[in-house]
Amino acid sequence: MIPTITAFESSPDRGQGHARDMRVRWALEEVGQPYDVRLVSFAEMKQPAHKALHPFGQIPTYQEGDLALFESAGIVFHIAERHPGVLLPDGVDARSRAIAWMFAALNTMEPVIFDRTLTMILERDKAWYEERLLGLEQRIRGLLADLSRHLGDSDWLDGGFSAADLLMVTVLRRLETSTLLAEFPNLLAYVERGRARPAYQRAFEAQAAVFAGLLR
Amino acid sequence: MIPTITAFESSPDRGQGHARDMRVRWALEEVGQPYDVRLVSFAEMKQPAHKALHPFGQIPTYQEGDLALFESAGIVFHIAERHPGVLLPDGVDARSRAIAWMFAALNTMEPVIFDRTLTMILERDKAWYEERLLGLEQRIRGLLADLSRHLGDSDWLDGGFSAADLLMVTVLRRLETSTLLAEFPNLLAYVERGRARPAYQRAFEAQAAVFAGLLR
Repeated sequence: MIPTITAFESSPDRGQGHARDMRVRWALEEVGQPYDVRLVSFAEMKQPAHKALHPFGQIPTYQEGDLALFESAGIVFHIAERHPGVLLPDGVDARSRAIAWMFAALNTMEPVIFDRTLTMILERDKAWYEERLLGLEQRIRGLLADLSRHLGDSDWLDGGFSAADLLMVTVLRRLETSTLLAEFPNLLAYVERGRARPAYQRAFEAQAAVFAGLLR
Repeated sequence: MIPTITAFESSPDRGQGHARDMRVRWALEEVGQPYDVRLVSFAEMKQPAHKALHPFGQIPTYQEGDLALFESAGIVFHIAERHPGVLLPDGVDARSRAIAWMFAALNTMEPVIFDRTLTMILERDKAWYEERLLGLEQRIRGLLADLSRHLGDSDWLDGGFSAADLLMVTVLRRLETSTLLAEFPNLLAYVERGRARPAYQRAFEAQAAVFAGLLR
């Protein structure tokens, strides 16, 4: 059964792959699962039909027969469970550690990194902008230092590539245009390692094609 | 084997149960798993010995034989897996939906709610305080409206009580002292339903006893 995901009809990032369908596309490519995509407009996302799939009116959603899921990391987790041994390790302990890192990517790293992105979009004209941004970047720097120390010269967060790396790379990519990531060469290399994966590249091209299609 | 968790030696919330060990204690109580607690000071949390357990130098951690975990939701998930049928439903689809709601609690709801708490602590003296707070509360109100609509007159987020409800209740509890939650009576009742669980109460008393001990 081919699952169907939703993605922005018109992505705010103009095809740079920061929209959260990228995570789901990447996971599906890693496990070799074909998928269909249904594009939704911002107006459609807020309609009852879409909110029945995604209570918060966002993308991505995931439909597979009678199962409807939302929340990108929840969908990635489901894909990992459907395809054992690819995105999560088989050993009980290693699996629990990988899942802990999935939550760390989303609940420790992403909130302040995403807040920086939002602040740069929404608060650029505010009198407090520079001071707020500096404060956020100091917090991010502290987290990156801890992450960099943990990673050391390993390729991935805990053993082989897992769903945790997939999520963490998508979170860190939000800092690609900042000098913050460059302060930690092993993290920069880690993100590059993620982007170099063939599955990442297929997923990236698929989401970029949606935006390119808008330009035609 | 009795697991050992870490908690604040001196919790910043003075025993109100907002520290993230509360989630782990609650989960352990729900599954009936006894546990040991090791208290750590803020200075100890930043030492290499603790960072070997928790790369970001926070609490809680979880040790069980050779397994060391961090990140409260990751630990809750591990506990759920160790005790099948208690904190996650058995059916494959229902399980995936519950896990999606775990991520929704932590990645959709918590960041902006926690940001409000942080702002109220750290930015109260800033010229921008009122305007920032108002903006955050508008975003929170939108999320609560969606959550309230989803919950309707159900007791829990998706079928029976699950780890997703456990996490969501701990997230929403941060709004207990605000009028925001009171705007949505079904969410207020939902939080009360969580707090009324005997496992919640045992966990709450256990963490409050640590702070009470400091007062002796």
